[in-house]
Amino acid sequence: MLGLMQDWPLTLDRILDHARTWHGAVEVVSRAIEGPILRSTYAQVHDRAKRLSRALLDLGVEPGDRIATLALNGGRHLEVWYGVMGMGAVCHTLNPRMSVDQLCYIINHAGDRIIFCDAIFLPLLAARREQMPSVERIVALNDEDYEPLIAQASPDAVWGGFDENTAAGLCYTSGTTGEPKGVLYSHRSNFLHTIATMSADVMGVSSRDVVLPVVPMFHANAWGLAFSAPAAGAKLVMPGAKLDGASIYELLESEKVTLSAAVPTVFQMLLAYLRETGQRLTTLKRVVIGGAALPPALMRAFEDEQGLLVVHAWGMTETSPLGVVSMPESRVAAMPREAQRVHLEKQGRPPLGIELRLTNEAGEDLPHDGRAVGHLMVRGPFVAASYFRGEGGDILDERGFFDTGDIAAIDPYGFMEITDRAKDVIKSGGEWISSIEIENLVMAHPAVEIAAVIGAAHPKWDERPVVVAKLKPGASADRAEILAFLEGKIPKWWTPDDVVFVDDVPLGPTGKVEKKIIRQRMAGYVLPTV
Amino acid sequence: MLGLMQDWPLTLDRILDHARTWHGAVEVVSRAIEGPILRSTYAQVHDRAKRLSRALLDLGVEPGDRIATLALNGGRHLEVWYGVMGMGAVCHTLNPRMSVDQLCYIINHAGDRIIFCDAIFLPLLAARREQMPSVERIVALNDEDYEPLIAQASPDAVWGGFDENTAAGLCYTSGTTGEPKGVLYSHRSNFLHTIATMSADVMGVSSRDVVLPVVPMFHANAWGLAFSAPAAGAKLVMPGAKLDGASIYELLESEKVTLSAAVPTVFQMLLAYLRETGQRLTTLKRVVIGGAALPPALMRAFEDEQGLLVVHAWGMTETSPLGVVSMPESRVAAMPREAQRVHLEKQGRPPLGIELRLTNEAGEDLPHDGRAVGHLMVRGPFVAASYFRGEGGDILDERGFFDTGDIAAIDPYGFMEITDRAKDVIKSGGEWISSIEIENLVMAHPAVEIAAVIGAAHPKWDERPVVVAKLKPGASADRAEILAFLEGKIPKWWTPDDVVFVDDVPLGPTGKVEKKIIRQRMAGYVLPTV
Repeated sequence: MLGLMQDWPLTLDRILDHARTWHGAVEVVSRAIEGPILRSTYAQVHDRAKRLSRALLDLGVEPGDRIATLALNGGRHLEVWYGVMGMGAVCHTLNPRMSVDQLCYIINHAGDRIIFCDAIFLPLLAARREQMPSVERIVALNDEDYEPLIAQASPDAVWGGFDENTAAGLCYTSGTTGEPKGVLYSHRSNFLHTIATMSADVMGVSSRDVVLPVVPMFHANAWGLAFSAPAAGAKLVMPGAKLDGASIYELLESEKVTLSAAVPTVFQMLLAYLRETGQRLTTLKRVVIGGAALPPALMRAFEDEQGLLVVHAWGMTETSPLGVVSMPESRVAAMPREAQRVHLEKQGRPPLGIELRLTNEAGEDLPHDGRAVGHLMVRGPFVAASYFRGEGGDILDERGFFDTGDIAAIDPYGFMEITDRAKDVIKSGGEWISSIEIENLVMAHPAVEIAAVIGAAHPKWDERPVVVAKLKPGASADRAEILAFLEGKIPKWWTPDDVVFVDDVPLGPTGKVEKKIIRQRMAGYVLPTV
Repeated sequence: MLGLMQDWPLTLDRILDHARTWHGAVEVVSRAIEGPILRSTYAQVHDRAKRLSRALLDLGVEPGDRIATLALNGGRHLEVWYGVMGMGAVCHTLNPRMSVDQLCYIINHAGDRIIFCDAIFLPLLAARREQMPSVERIVALNDEDYEPLIAQASPDAVWGGFDENTAAGLCYTSGTTGEPKGVLYSHRSNFLHTIATMSADVMGVSSRDVVLPVVPMFHANAWGLAFSAPAAGAKLVMPGAKLDGASIYELLESEKVTLSAAVPTVFQMLLAYLRETGQRLTTLKRVVIGGAALPPALMRAFEDEQGLLVVHAWGMTETSPLGVVSMPESRVAAMPREAQRVHLEKQGRPPLGIELRLTNEAGEDLPHDGRAVGHLMVRGPFVAASYFRGEGGDILDERGFFDTGDIAAIDPYGFMEITDRAKDVIKSGGEWISSIEIENLVMAHPAVEIAAVIGAAHPKWDERPVVVAKLKPGASADRAEILAFLEGKIPKWWTPDDVVFVDDVPLGPTGKVEKKIIRQRMAGYVLPTV
């Protein structure tokens, strides 16, 4: 027997319709790539996104066609999103930090017909224009190219009216192994992700919030904020190209931002700026930090020095990206602050809609005891079922869970902690050593700017950990000092066998350390014999 | 082109699975009908609900069968809900405040096979047992009848695995016109309602909350709290039969409740108790009040005397029941408190997932200017499309909107205010007079216990308003005093033509004034000639 409730497909056009009708005067503020602050409202974004849909229809774009963006966070980028998705086309967010070879591969793989791009990225595309045969047009998101397109079109395009499982967005993972693979979001998955993230224990975005997503729109949907902010009626502040501490601080204060989200490095830069200048954040209340493990010292500094609520979160392109959020549940909330930190420094707990499992090599479930370490498997309505064009084959296990590629533990309070990437885990004497845990400790050393820990071949133990560290300019430290710094903080048998100092630690397009490259560079390395 | 995300049907069993796995130790506390406080956890509720499913399967219950409950809020009632819904049967919540004739009609109309009922309601059913041919068994929710059923069954029943549009719950509206009509909720509609209500601007339930739903589980799903509390991992406190001020106060304090929800009368009783005893609420932070218009004086008293956030909300059985919630958006939040109240005293604003329209008699949209008054129409994924067995025929307009039967205005800040029921509105000289607005003002008079305003036939103006009032015991007031009390608070032409004092104002099963009965009693009434 079926229920007798209304058939109301969960399509993303309804989010901007809602914002237009109930929060039409709420601002969308952008720092343009060209410099000036642009001001718009949800009513205007709605009107202009409708015009964009009409312009696309007039250009012959059809439902299902891939329309790409190569742009930083801004109001025009937001209009393109809704204009493309509203009419049933697929908004493909390109990551400008990828190499031009990767971009070329991705554009061809997706078969993008039009690319909307910030003017600064035009040369990047122009250089390889003839290698992108599917691309019919490149539109610069500026006054000269984009604005006439909007101005000439009428705001009469019809949105929605299709199956909620229709593809809405396409985002390629940075591809640490093999070529980048595309995650094809549906309207349903993004809509469900949006309402899930609006929960009090996730992002808790309200109509009184002013949200500054530093996390890029091309980086797993800006963690959903480009959907949840209009859904909640929160003012949206888009930072454009300037992510340095001074620029972010200026926007946070001038626009009275209450909630921000970014990777740790952005907040590291902000913290450094605040300490240098002695400035205070007067309106910001919460920051969500993810994309890479949150250094405990950073969390503590923002809490102690600025009175912020710092929320650790984890997710991936394949999870839209919400996975877990480190909000205290009742038992943890009742602990003294220092005891709370033990849990809150971990990646966090899953909301309704994310099922997590820890499994051993045999695929058997492991307990949530904080000690058992296993493969992190995830299932839910906004988790990928397969990659675009079937790349990578069948990616779900027999229970329908996706293998995140992460190694994790879950404590008795439900806090999940990633201890490693499966490919980075160091297998020593049949046991696993967490490269991430050692890295975090090494990076807390005052002389270290950035560090990675990799496994080096060992005749007896199979692998042993080695620290690869770049020191801060002018700082000095030696092997013995770094190893002494770790003493008592990790099990004795985890102690790295060596510390190698380097001038450069390579970072990938999303700011993560590229261990693959480090391993290549260390190919000839031999462990010292003790 | 369809997205490539996981197929994860939105079925309600996943909510209790989530609570079991991630919030298994969180308590469900119930005041038993028999008196004592019973303590359970989400892990135990999950185990026992699974056993109940097995017991039902062993009794031959099949998916789609209607299994009724006639029970107050309690842990066992919760187990029955999830046990019934989890296996794909339909949980039909009977309202014990309905007349036995209505109950009989509803049970037969639904074709209920089993009724789980609090022992106190057994005599009610026994009296008409032979008039309920579909009912095979009545199970009392006590140690003697219910517990052996649970104890004998194994917790191995399989939940879910069906279409998310499968019927999950059945709730009959109290039926102010004609016979009661059944709203047949689906798993999808209740699931979406759950995550929508978890938003910061709706109920904002978090894992740190302790929730006491005074609003009954048979009254439109306890406003979804029996789903959203386990979904968020909030402790749930079930008040059973004792809703007086002293009993509710005791539970609020002893269980450290942070969030409660009820109709205004319950909070009126609580306020009276607090004032009499000089007690303070030490843990309660937010109360959501709906089911009837919130008297501004009550809102003010709880805010000023107890420092609570009082949130006005509106909905109906047909909207699952969330419709609107009166949380301030940014512009209202920036106003001085007194100016805020003008908006916050209204029913509120719709979250994403509720579309509201105001229409005139011709079905045309009216502006959101706070002055235009029209029919309130609603559309969304948790709004009814039709009633069970097709009663009432086609209930949606050509745009797919459901007519709430309410007359409302929407102000420029998006706050909806119900000014009347369409059938209660007083049409005077071609204009509408709000009976509710006058009632609220009359009820603020210190001598008045309860009042209703109805339209009386008038030779020239068609109808004119008449106050029907019951005074407080020992209090006195006359016609002139009541009318003088209204002066300056309403337009002059709204001034009632008469005040009729009565000994009794009839209330319906959900505590609302039964204007139909008042109109019947006033059938011979003739307006005084001025």
